[in-house]
Amino acid sequence: MKLTFEKSNLINAINIVSKAVSSKSTLPILECILIDASTDEIKMIANDLELGIETKVAGTITERGKTAVPSKLFGEIIRKLPDSDVEISTDSANNMMIVCENANFKIPANPADEFSYLPYIEKDKYICLSQFTLKELIRQTIFSISANDNNKLMTGELFEINENMLRVVSLDGHRISIRKIKLNDSYEKKNVVVPGKTLNEISRILTGDNEKEVFLFFGENNIMFEFDDTKVVSRLIEGEYFNIDRMLSSDYTTKISLNKKRLLDCIERSMLLIRENDRKPIIMNITDDMALSMNSTFGTMNERIEIEKEGKDIMIGFNPKFFVDALKVIDDEEVTLYLINSKAPCFIRDDNEEYVYLILPVNFNNAG
Amino acid sequence: MKLTFEKSNLINAINIVSKAVSSKSTLPILECILIDASTDEIKMIANDLELGIETKVAGTITERGKTAVPSKLFGEIIRKLPDSDVEISTDSANNMMIVCENANFKIPANPADEFSYLPYIEKDKYICLSQFTLKELIRQTIFSISANDNNKLMTGELFEINENMLRVVSLDGHRISIRKIKLNDSYEKKNVVVPGKTLNEISRILTGDNEKEVFLFFGENNIMFEFDDTKVVSRLIEGEYFNIDRMLSSDYTTKISLNKKRLLDCIERSMLLIRENDRKPIIMNITDDMALSMNSTFGTMNERIEIEKEGKDIMIGFNPKFFVDALKVIDDEEVTLYLINSKAPCFIRDDNEEYVYLILPVNFNNAG
Repeated sequence: MKLTFEKSNLINAINIVSKAVSSKSTLPILECILIDASTDEIKMIANDLELGIETKVAGTITERGKTAVPSKLFGEIIRKLPDSDVEISTDSANNMMIVCENANFKIPANPADEFSYLPYIEKDKYICLSQFTLKELIRQTIFSISANDNNKLMTGELFEINENMLRVVSLDGHRISIRKIKLNDSYEKKNVVVPGKTLNEISRILTGDNEKEVFLFFGENNIMFEFDDTKVVSRLIEGEYFNIDRMLSSDYTTKISLNKKRLLDCIERSMLLIRENDRKPIIMNITDDMALSMNSTFGTMNERIEIEKEGKDIMIGFNPKFFVDALKVIDDEEVTLYLINSKAPCFIRDDNEEYVYLILPVNFNNAG
Repeated sequence: MKLTFEKSNLINAINIVSKAVSSKSTLPILECILIDASTDEIKMIANDLELGIETKVAGTITERGKTAVPSKLFGEIIRKLPDSDVEISTDSANNMMIVCENANFKIPANPADEFSYLPYIEKDKYICLSQFTLKELIRQTIFSISANDNNKLMTGELFEINENMLRVVSLDGHRISIRKIKLNDSYEKKNVVVPGKTLNEISRILTGDNEKEVFLFFGENNIMFEFDDTKVVSRLIEGEYFNIDRMLSSDYTTKISLNKKRLLDCIERSMLLIRENDRKPIIMNITDDMALSMNSTFGTMNERIEIEKEGKDIMIGFNPKFFVDALKVIDDEEVTLYLINSKAPCFIRDDNEEYVYLILPVNFNNAG
């Protein structure tokens, strides 16, 4: 194999596929990137068996071939080379030679035949949306998946397609995040649960370009994201997702609207008084205004915020982090909170329910 | 006590003095900042007993007083407040109240009388230089102090004043870094060894302004840096510093000049093939050009660089990190290396010896 690349093309491709490289594996081949120039195009592939990424790289093929090279070292070397053309070749002893101007590297590679290619996925069931929209949907929901593996379904996000509506849902037992958007076309009904890790990596690769599209193809056990010159294939999480519609309610006894930034800043300030593992709630006392207070071993904080209110006065406590997470991804200047009582969930939602954030309250001592 | 500040003035002062706050101490008072408004001016002081910093803060005194407040929490709260005036007051139970717009904090403080003020230093022995120069001198030498406490003197830097010359020296047993500058005035002879930690913190506080001065006052066991509205006092390291002039030699059998950036880039690339604790040397084979090579379990690298040479051919090995550290702080485009043989130190120095970097070679296997 003998290939020539512009350094920047090579770096770009490495950055994309390295998202699917195992960082610590007992199988050295899983720490490798496959460079496949066995046909007329050059592809780079990484596959940790949960997530696989394949991308095309522009370059010149002087001699066809393929090889699997350790991702980390290969990436570090290429990044440190002079900004010039890079020549990559292999010898019969499975070494890879890298030449750029006067610099010569020789590093051990692995035989390509040990490498697992991406699984094949039929392209009959799919949806299409802009890269920007997908990236936003992920950002606005990913924080409320569960980090804990006890319930596998909670570590992923539900993608629910119903005609021209796509709803993305995540929940961790204390809160639910829901974003809904209209697609340009109508598609077959489909529910899949995509691993959170996949979505995190996808969102790092997506350019966030509003003009560029991304296709989601649904296989039996896999999902494939296809965009630009890149394919990302991930296993789906098996099982029936939670019936969230049963948990959503439009009843309320108190409805308040207030400035989002003021609320966010205030809650973030209150969190300065808590340390990790400390579960002090932020108390909201809603009367004609909202009086927020925090009381911990490190001190006390209280602050008043103007609100517009309909309904009853209420005093309720929350894990402040859950409020901060939701408020951070809401772009509206004003937010509206719907409350029932101090034991029932609070809903933050807009009029069209394009977003719904449900947060369970916590018990607190009134005397605190 | 009752004081009012502009938030930005307060943050600036906290950023300066907090460099002298113990991060982990058994004495809570060492984690505090003293706010002293017992006279007509407001001072903030921190003192971990090795290093002490005092700075003036602009603000309004409504009621005089002083208090010691936990540095970390106080700083975090002030930074998170709205950009507005901040009112700070204390009550009789040693609490500090912080009020800014609608936000109210109450945190426990400590009685001011537990706090240690900075030691007094006579101002008769001193030198003066620009903040920029001092910051540069530190940056260009600090990397070769020893992290290891076995020899206390190696953890500091020698400041040697001789008439209008200041020489700053650091060494760790494998290398020596020397920078020499001309002062604007002549001063009394003086040798002091300043702790590396002090110099690191000082260099973070100095603005690096060429127009602004910094005074160094020399006490019996302490040094005081005075600049802007700030005083930094540090203990000196006791003992006689190494006689470095005996280690410096102007003899050489090989002298080469080459492009600094090319050499630096090449050595940095070679370091990709070594991991921590791996002591593989970079081998320089100097003939009509310089052939650099690295050979490790991760692969091999070689690269040729054009040089101008006087004297004999030589092959010599170095710890690549030592070369990188020195080359990074040399601003010249071309550097000159002076060599004697493969067991004698290499000198990197300019014609006026404004900088001298001595690096000991390492043994290597020719067959490698």
